[in-house]
Amino acid sequence: MLRRFAALVLLGGCCMQGKSDEGMWLFSNPPRQKLQEKYQISLSDDWLKHVQLASVRLNNGGSGSFVSPNGLLLTNHHVGSDALQKLSPPHKDYYLQGFTAKSREDELKCPDLEVNVLQEIVDVTSKVNEVVKSDMTPAQANAARRSVMAAIEKESLEKTGLRSDVVTLYQGGLYHLYRYKKYTDVRLVFAPEKAIASFGGDVDNFEYPRYNLDICFFRVYENNKPLESKHFLKWSANGPKEGEPVFVSGHPGTTQRLETYERLRFRRDVILPYTLTRLRNREANLMQFSAKSPTHAKWAQKDLYSTANARKAFSGQYQGLLDTSIMMSKKEQEAKLLGALNQMGKQDVAGSTRFAIDEIANIQSKLRKFYRDYMLLEVGDAFDSTLYKIARDLVRQRAELGKPNGERLREYRDSAKSSLELQLYSPAPIYPEVEITRLATSLTFLAEQLGGEHPTTQKILQGKSPANRAAELVLGTKLSSVDERKAFSKLSTPEMMQHQSDSMINLVKLIDEQARDLRKQFEESVEEPERQCYSTIANAKFAVFGTNIAPDATFTLRLAFGKVGGYEVEGKQLNYCTTFQGVFDRNKENGGVEPFDLPTRWTDGKSKLDLSTPFNFVSTADTIGGNSGSPVVNATGEFVGINFDRNRHGLVRNFVYTDVQARHIAVHSNAIRESLSKLYDVKPLLDELGLK
Amino acid sequence: MLRRFAALVLLGGCCMQGKSDEGMWLFSNPPRQKLQEKYQISLSDDWLKHVQLASVRLNNGGSGSFVSPNGLLLTNHHVGSDALQKLSPPHKDYYLQGFTAKSREDELKCPDLEVNVLQEIVDVTSKVNEVVKSDMTPAQANAARRSVMAAIEKESLEKTGLRSDVVTLYQGGLYHLYRYKKYTDVRLVFAPEKAIASFGGDVDNFEYPRYNLDICFFRVYENNKPLESKHFLKWSANGPKEGEPVFVSGHPGTTQRLETYERLRFRRDVILPYTLTRLRNREANLMQFSAKSPTHAKWAQKDLYSTANARKAFSGQYQGLLDTSIMMSKKEQEAKLLGALNQMGKQDVAGSTRFAIDEIANIQSKLRKFYRDYMLLEVGDAFDSTLYKIARDLVRQRAELGKPNGERLREYRDSAKSSLELQLYSPAPIYPEVEITRLATSLTFLAEQLGGEHPTTQKILQGKSPANRAAELVLGTKLSSVDERKAFSKLSTPEMMQHQSDSMINLVKLIDEQARDLRKQFEESVEEPERQCYSTIANAKFAVFGTNIAPDATFTLRLAFGKVGGYEVEGKQLNYCTTFQGVFDRNKENGGVEPFDLPTRWTDGKSKLDLSTPFNFVSTADTIGGNSGSPVVNATGEFVGINFDRNRHGLVRNFVYTDVQARHIAVHSNAIRESLSKLYDVKPLLDELGLK
Repeated sequence: MLRRFAALVLLGGCCMQGKSDEGMWLFSNPPRQKLQEKYQISLSDDWLKHVQLASVRLNNGGSGSFVSPNGLLLTNHHVGSDALQKLSPPHKDYYLQGFTAKSREDELKCPDLEVNVLQEIVDVTSKVNEVVKSDMTPAQANAARRSVMAAIEKESLEKTGLRSDVVTLYQGGLYHLYRYKKYTDVRLVFAPEKAIASFGGDVDNFEYPRYNLDICFFRVYENNKPLESKHFLKWSANGPKEGEPVFVSGHPGTTQRLETYERLRFRRDVILPYTLTRLRNREANLMQFSAKSPTHAKWAQKDLYSTANARKAFSGQYQGLLDTSIMMSKKEQEAKLLGALNQMGKQDVAGSTRFAIDEIANIQSKLRKFYRDYMLLEVGDAFDSTLYKIARDLVRQRAELGKPNGERLREYRDSAKSSLELQLYSPAPIYPEVEITRLATSLTFLAEQLGGEHPTTQKILQGKSPANRAAELVLGTKLSSVDERKAFSKLSTPEMMQHQSDSMINLVKLIDEQARDLRKQFEESVEEPERQCYSTIANAKFAVFGTNIAPDATFTLRLAFGKVGGYEVEGKQLNYCTTFQGVFDRNKENGGVEPFDLPTRWTDGKSKLDLSTPFNFVSTADTIGGNSGSPVVNATGEFVGINFDRNRHGLVRNFVYTDVQARHIAVHSNAIRESLSKLYDVKPLLDELGLK
Repeated sequence: MLRRFAALVLLGGCCMQGKSDEGMWLFSNPPRQKLQEKYQISLSDDWLKHVQLASVRLNNGGSGSFVSPNGLLLTNHHVGSDALQKLSPPHKDYYLQGFTAKSREDELKCPDLEVNVLQEIVDVTSKVNEVVKSDMTPAQANAARRSVMAAIEKESLEKTGLRSDVVTLYQGGLYHLYRYKKYTDVRLVFAPEKAIASFGGDVDNFEYPRYNLDICFFRVYENNKPLESKHFLKWSANGPKEGEPVFVSGHPGTTQRLETYERLRFRRDVILPYTLTRLRNREANLMQFSAKSPTHAKWAQKDLYSTANARKAFSGQYQGLLDTSIMMSKKEQEAKLLGALNQMGKQDVAGSTRFAIDEIANIQSKLRKFYRDYMLLEVGDAFDSTLYKIARDLVRQRAELGKPNGERLREYRDSAKSSLELQLYSPAPIYPEVEITRLATSLTFLAEQLGGEHPTTQKILQGKSPANRAAELVLGTKLSSVDERKAFSKLSTPEMMQHQSDSMINLVKLIDEQARDLRKQFEESVEEPERQCYSTIANAKFAVFGTNIAPDATFTLRLAFGKVGGYEVEGKQLNYCTTFQGVFDRNKENGGVEPFDLPTRWTDGKSKLDLSTPFNFVSTADTIGGNSGSPVVNATGEFVGINFDRNRHGLVRNFVYTDVQARHIAVHSNAIRESLSKLYDVKPLLDELGLK
């Protein structure tokens, strides 16, 4: 199946984004001409502003939208799962059983959920680039760039009071300042049962047809009152139809479409095998942990789901990159770009572009030498523990706050402080059993990767087996208490350095110098030089294609467009949508066994439902992980659905766009209305949504 | 917990096997003196002969025993699972639901189960060693040794008609010829439901307390009649009691207790990380495959169980080897051996032993360079497919049969032909879906290990993704038909070389030369030199300790002994046995949810049972994987139970024996009697066993 669209890519469809629906577009540079030509839609500035301000980003990696004037926020159940789990009292499980706030007073405040709404985009490319002089070493360039970015952010925060992030686009081709309104009082309003929210579970993940009510409602509060959300999406009367153009407004996480051939080779031969090994290790151990009892299963369910999901997604990417025709198409794109530059008489640009492409290859060779150490120690793959992360933030924040804002590690800059502390002092419960299992698994992974006698392994394990060492570390820290964390953060630097009694703090101190060195090496010998190279390549592309190329995804707000429509698999045509009848059929086919079980509310209430109601639908719009919870809107800006997944044909979209079979999958707006009004006791919610 | 017994090892308990119950002893050299001293038991030659002839080995890696004069064979349900699965017709699942043959006519013939009964052990050490001359290169020595072993086996087969295998003991210290009666007409008689046979499933695997009726009865036929099994174990009236000495007679697979420190380092830093990565990959993919439907689950259940089981066992070993005190104890043992030799005035032996120990370290460095290639291509980790294995045997058998018997790869020697062909022409069904998943998984593993551009990866994948290549290979072969296999084996060598139309045969041809080169390299630069070194070390040990050390396990018949008795875990005393009451309690505690569900026969029949009946029990006897299904007998040679597992404290027994907490776990003979007589409609079986 992969081979089929690969041929299409070779015909030149991909990179130019000519007639296809490719692109996760900037709201500041929407694909107006394409939309006019292909769908005869002209996007007004008002439409764009309205959709932008109705779209939200959640700090746990998902998207959502306002759907009422009173701060009502709709996202996916699987995006809300973290909050559902943290909010569940000991003998309840809102993730499994669902939740309904009977009144506003019953809405539950999430311990550490932050919501961002993008207000403004400012191009700061020249400001960032002008501090980098051509005679600077990469270390100097990196320091200068870091410093100017922190200054721009701090100045913006102080001036506007808005969360201000400088975003690197086109891998360094452009820098934009994104200003967000930030909300940290977010309360749970409604979630359906897990059985219907993720019907089909891991089995149907990345598959279609699907039957998921993957929704969760929160409400954003400001000053202890529901937010007045002037910009919210109105519910469409009919939802989307076959062939209709639709838009997805959300926060796609990361894509690698602008990466060079050599970078993708590194991804295929180093990053993905390493990542898959790590994920399978985690999955096997979490699975074994979960099987111990229903309580263990509850503790581990979110981690297990996200691990299995990531493993599947990365497996799909890996399969795609092993397909020679996909890799070859990347190589041809590079040749085409150089050819086009030469044809345009821009031999000098072609020369510097060729040089940049070669330099990126050299950078990968350098990275290969310390990639594993960097991932284990600095990114933290060796320390899969919430308590460890807290300990590290406490130790590092103390050290970084003593430096000027522009010289700190980016995550400790002034403008990021309050978001960091929301996480750091989150009262969400931490289960020692889960911590021990996760840490033991990752320490075992460390030993497997480096070998039992590597000085780093020995320093960390101290002669103990990973299982014993993990237990000792988790049981020897007091950082599960928020008060202890706060007390620790108040210690002076010398007090902190002398502090000996906390096992996790001691572990951080033991390896932090080594980890920081790796971070520095990464930033100076990989990140910064790569950025300069990609900036050259991006400018070459702008010269050839204009701004008719969207940047790679960066977990910032983007607009994708596409057409609602089914597709063919192995000679069989799949319809653009599924129906309620379908979920009952699939439940029956599988004997009602998990993950194909249904809540009794659904089996008992079947007769109340119009079984021909559309359930999920697919479109060609260009999405990726991070788009979970993104609203799907029609040309008039109405809410017609909520994105929650891609099919497996879409897994290679990290590298190349294809629309032959690849589709994103959304819950149809009619499905939400029909199920909420017939099966759930949520009249106030329906009233608020303007549904009968 | 691991640290605790490690300290004990350091005190010198381990290697000397002084007062401990350590040892998987040869029937030709039983630990008579130890038994006399510790338990005041004197083993008669008759007792030994009787138990030996009542013990059987199954060719799928398990053990068992005769329990009636009419060829009735008792083994574990999990040993029988392969046969249960292969014998199940499309709409039944004997593995899950159990099976009862109403009469002898209803007993079901297994497609490819072979049973061996050891008749005789002959020491052929001098015969094997005398062909190896001191001036031979390792290649010459290996050829000479292979040739003489094949000749001994062939001569013995021709003379006695018995299956004849030369077994390497003490890693090359001794060579014994084992002569077996071989039976290939083995029929299924009775199996209980999976829910009670492996109650607790993967969760309780390697744990205690346990509640498993892990039994399965087969009957061995000869000339289409039940075998007259004169030597069978009589059922004990009362079963084992706390503190009673017992014996385990079975076929432990492999241990590494005599391996040197440097070899264990290689195991820790190369073999185990590689193996765990492979197993977790397989487990994740089989899990995903199983979740698709109950049929998929049925197809994959045996592979999934064995993979999870192996992953758990190897994880335990890996944790143990990362514990510095265990590794250090190994190093000290080596120093002690050399010290003892010097004290005895045997400086020359000490010198050659020191040299052998160093040489084994050098061999590991050599092996490190090609270990991965060897495992992937020759051992076949890249080709996890039954069809591939069939294809390779067909191609290789043809090539090898053209050579003199003594020069062939060992598995194609004349004396092994009929056992090989039982497998090769087995009519057991092969499911293409399972084959594609397993092969895709292992081809992905190949790419991850070698990289996408490695010539071997490219040669094998041919530019396709592993998933697509696996589908092409499985759908392009006709070898699922036994007739096609037979037709293929009848082709002449030139016809076979020209044969082009079978995808699997073509794959074998593509890589067989490379695989054979790796095999040759392994045999000549690792296996043979290692054998010579271990032979030196073994002789040094014999000089110091006499034959008071048992050889490492080699999947040949051994006798272990120990004492029935509970142990303490985290301050809690565990009883030597569990009871029927316990299984109902644990079922209730876990809400009856799988893997803690019980067959309705058990829940409905609860009131019929004496709930104080012992269910499973533990003893200190020294067992390892391969001992599954071994009978546990008392001092008078009666059947008192059947071994089926070890606890997790026993997982490091691969490297060191410990009896502080480590135990093997067995089904109590009373549990079998009580459940069969009260819950199952198997009167003829009970009569045959001599049970009321």
